Amino acid sequence: MAGTVYFALTMSLDGFVAPDSHAAGVRAMDSFKVPEKYQDDAEVQHWRSQWGELHQGTFPLRFFRENLKLGEGGDEGRDNDRARETFERTGASVMGRRMFDLGELSWPEEAPFHTPVFVVTHTEREPWERPGGTTFHFVTTGIESALDQARKAAGDRDVRIAGGGTTVLQYLNAGLVDEFSITLSPVLFGAGIRLFEGVDASRIALEPIRSEPSPHGPTHLTYAVHAR
Amino acid sequence: MAGTVYFALTMSLDGFVAPDSHAAGVRAMDSFKVPEKYQDDAEVQHWRSQWGELHQGTFPLRFFRENLKLGEGGDEGRDNDRARETFERTGASVMGRRMFDLGELSWPEEAPFHTPVFVVTHTEREPWERPGGTTFHFVTTGIESALDQARKAAGDRDVRIAGGGTTVLQYLNAGLVDEFSITLSPVLFGAGIRLFEGVDASRIALEPIRSEPSPHGPTHLTYAVHAR
Repeated sequence: MAGTVYFALTMSLDGFVAPDSHAAGVRAMDSFKVPEKYQDDAEVQHWRSQWGELHQGTFPLRFFRENLKLGEGGDEGRDNDRARETFERTGASVMGRRMFDLGELSWPEEAPFHTPVFVVTHTEREPWERPGGTTFHFVTTGIESALDQARKAAGDRDVRIAGGGTTVLQYLNAGLVDEFSITLSPVLFGAGIRLFEGVDASRIALEPIRSEPSPHGPTHLTYAVHAR
Repeated sequence: MAGTVYFALTMSLDGFVAPDSHAAGVRAMDSFKVPEKYQDDAEVQHWRSQWGELHQGTFPLRFFRENLKLGEGGDEGRDNDRARETFERTGASVMGRRMFDLGELSWPEEAPFHTPVFVVTHTEREPWERPGGTTFHFVTTGIESALDQARKAAGDRDVRIAGGGTTVLQYLNAGLVDEFSITLSPVLFGAGIRLFEGVDASRIALEPIRSEPSPHGPTHLTYAVHAR
């Protein structure tokens, strides 16, 4: 379906899409580049450890490794194909400012989107063009405006609400998401950013589209979203 | 694996195993027998509606209908077989007092367990024997004592921690659960009893065992529990 607005996130079995503490996340992302600066920071180690467990099915994939410039090789097969398909269907992405903050610290110079990305923020900033086709546009006029711009930029392809959890939920509650995929990871977090915290359940009906287990342990669940 | 301690619950995609308000649940269960008494009780209607959506994959099953005396017929196939297998593996159950309260109002006279059931409670009560082989034993000496008694009663078969969510979590956090199954229902609750609220995530590692989609929409996920 061309022009679908979707999100695809990895969630712990108890419903979290990120460890607690955005501040620790910022330091954790920085620590991928300058690990010696953070080696005694227990909060950073904990954040990295939880993040690593959550995404244990993604990090080994060949497509992910290539796109994030993590090195040659990696796992192939259905999970890798799914990661590539998710990338290829996406003509533009929308993300919140906090996700951008983490990514700015950790993405390679050739940012992994290779399309326009619209960052919902309160702070004006000139478009930031990266090698390889990613341009970040900073939108201060709200989530609907960011989505409109992303739709136009995406053409026939789909728009991904990339994250983080809070931004995704804003779009879901506003009735602006057509479909979503959850990679349900076999871990318990106990605390963190809950994807569906504050969801307007009375307005949202889900239609199961696909459910696929993966050899890495997570289960991939896809739902269409309907109003009710 | 004989002697396994397990639980099997149905959970909403956002992590809830029951609607909010135990008091509304008690009235809702009573309303199955005397609907006219509750027809203007909006909280009861809401509770029943959420409960019905959560268990949409279970209510139509032939085994479930027969065991709960809901009438002849019903769906057969893999989901029905799974429900029967879950019943057959279970030599004894343990449940919390609040689950018992709901069940006492809604189970048929021939209660659906057909084995000993140990109710963890603060209130002494004589064993309550039902036709068809279910006897409820009221245990006031704590969760470990209830489990010990259930293990002995189960013989070679497994012990099911039947529910509710709070009791299940007590057993999980105490390291007393070997395995669990979640029927992940394609609904969002937004509020209610969260299964993993307060889970001791730092001590629990999960090993994915099975993931099976079902034609009714839910996905059945089974995990082994390991200490870490």
